[in-house]
Amino acid sequence: MLSEFDLIKQYFQRQRPGRAVLGIGDDCALLAPSPGMQLAISCDMLVEGRHFFAGADPRMLGHKSLAVNLSDLAAMGATPRAFTLALSLPSADRDWLEGFSSGLFALADAHDCELVGGDTTKGPLNICITIFGEVAPGHALRRDAAKAGDDIWISGTLGDARLALAGYRSELALDADSLSAAALRMHAPSPRVALGMALSEHATVHAAIDISDGLVGDLGHILSASKVGATLDADALPAGAVLARQPLDLRRRFCAAGGDDYELCFTAPASAREAVMAAATRAATPVTRVGTIDAEPGLRLADASGAPLALSLAGFDHFSGD
Amino acid sequence: MLSEFDLIKQYFQRQRPGRAVLGIGDDCALLAPSPGMQLAISCDMLVEGRHFFAGADPRMLGHKSLAVNLSDLAAMGATPRAFTLALSLPSADRDWLEGFSSGLFALADAHDCELVGGDTTKGPLNICITIFGEVAPGHALRRDAAKAGDDIWISGTLGDARLALAGYRSELALDADSLSAAALRMHAPSPRVALGMALSEHATVHAAIDISDGLVGDLGHILSASKVGATLDADALPAGAVLARQPLDLRRRFCAAGGDDYELCFTAPASAREAVMAAATRAATPVTRVGTIDAEPGLRLADASGAPLALSLAGFDHFSGD
Repeated sequence: MLSEFDLIKQYFQRQRPGRAVLGIGDDCALLAPSPGMQLAISCDMLVEGRHFFAGADPRMLGHKSLAVNLSDLAAMGATPRAFTLALSLPSADRDWLEGFSSGLFALADAHDCELVGGDTTKGPLNICITIFGEVAPGHALRRDAAKAGDDIWISGTLGDARLALAGYRSELALDADSLSAAALRMHAPSPRVALGMALSEHATVHAAIDISDGLVGDLGHILSASKVGATLDADALPAGAVLARQPLDLRRRFCAAGGDDYELCFTAPASAREAVMAAATRAATPVTRVGTIDAEPGLRLADASGAPLALSLAGFDHFSGD
Repeated sequence: MLSEFDLIKQYFQRQRPGRAVLGIGDDCALLAPSPGMQLAISCDMLVEGRHFFAGADPRMLGHKSLAVNLSDLAAMGATPRAFTLALSLPSADRDWLEGFSSGLFALADAHDCELVGGDTTKGPLNICITIFGEVAPGHALRRDAAKAGDDIWISGTLGDARLALAGYRSELALDADSLSAAALRMHAPSPRVALGMALSEHATVHAAIDISDGLVGDLGHILSASKVGATLDADALPAGAVLARQPLDLRRRFCAAGGDDYELCFTAPASAREAVMAAATRAATPVTRVGTIDAEPGLRLADASGAPLALSLAGFDHFSGD
């Protein structure tokens, strides 16, 4: 029988020395913030059947649970420091814990982000991570700072995670190789931490957000916070490798409103194009210009020729519909 | 239909100005830590059916969810600053949200602790709060610093929450007035934040912990972290007002291993008795001396005459038994 304390000790309390003043095992963890830096804090809760399938691979789940939080730090341009993990588990299953913790720590180590505390309890599977990063005052990439005339940029590629979901749901037929390639984007997203840090340090980026609920919905948050509008070139949107082989209409729709992409969408003045490209090179992360911020409110989609496009799109809302 | 964004805006995003550099509504919240202070971080997850009954009063639940986290800050001697809230809800029920958020914010305001971010999703009811406080370097009250010869102190009273649980479970008969008085201790604990801060600032306290899983179990964490033992005077333990009217054996057992008390247990040298009493007076919180830290490992219980007592006691473990 694995007790709560054994579970924490065996799977989550590590022997390697951490940077925290005091890590797991007291009422609180203690961190010493770097002098003069601001603390960026984000929190995501993942629920079985909603954010991942029942029976999802625990290693990938450990990766993804932290990845979605790292992606929020990336969208602020913050440097990861530490996180807490609260886990509600139906049972203390050793194989699951082994897989989950190894996926989690592999990504945590890659970003030098330390697990400093948390909670474990019995209940329906639920994973809640709160993450802490640091950013220099005035350097955070906020949602409310887009300006008319800004370029709109996207990191990496879009839509493959949504394509995998469509495959799982049999909304369309995908061969096994395509499905497993697309599924990697769904299960093991790469948070754009290096790009966020490079943009915050070296480029005049105005606004940024991470794309978790679909580009149109998430860019919409920038537009409403910044009180501006935008025109997107639907055919400039960088489709994922698998999605790129699909028909045009599907490509446009899944790029524009796919969800689960965990890419960055950011805006910067045209004068910053070289600096943006240099930051992208430094972070080894491709970026693509996909549109323009307008003074006129609303989000407009156009094709490569500039002709208006009407796509049926909606962002994801946890309390609407299902 | 209440959308996720409306839900956050209506119930959790407040108009009053906060101290955070950037609060709810971006990828991350931004906090400016006070120069030179350490950050104390704790995280608790509350699951329906495990930490509270299905159908629990939402206002009390809002209070309790934050109270258990504030209690962890209290046990470190930290000053509350901010918290994040992740909520998984079966549905967006307006009455529930109204009650929960009002209970939560009433306690948050009393401790000047700001909600800076979080997450909401659909799923089995689950409440996860991560809290941040500040403490001066070297002033945190840790678990691993108890010394042989220390007095053991307890704040407030013990056992009424456990008594209420026994009443709900019909383990014993309680009249309605007694049950409702005891139940207040279970549903609306008072985190000992003021005492923790006063002890950390003004008294030579060695070790501290908050009593959430029962005194014997939680004191046990201090003993193992500090590599010492202890002798408790079972008859010195301060019973709650309702428990005090129960038979001696029940009083002893529920004081020693009740659970859900959210009092502080701390150790300090005998030379600090006056300073401890002064800190308690400053914090308007009663404290009682209940035993002594020993060099000899193990936890011994004695009655008022010093004769050894054998009680059948166990701390609470989420993964043992049920």
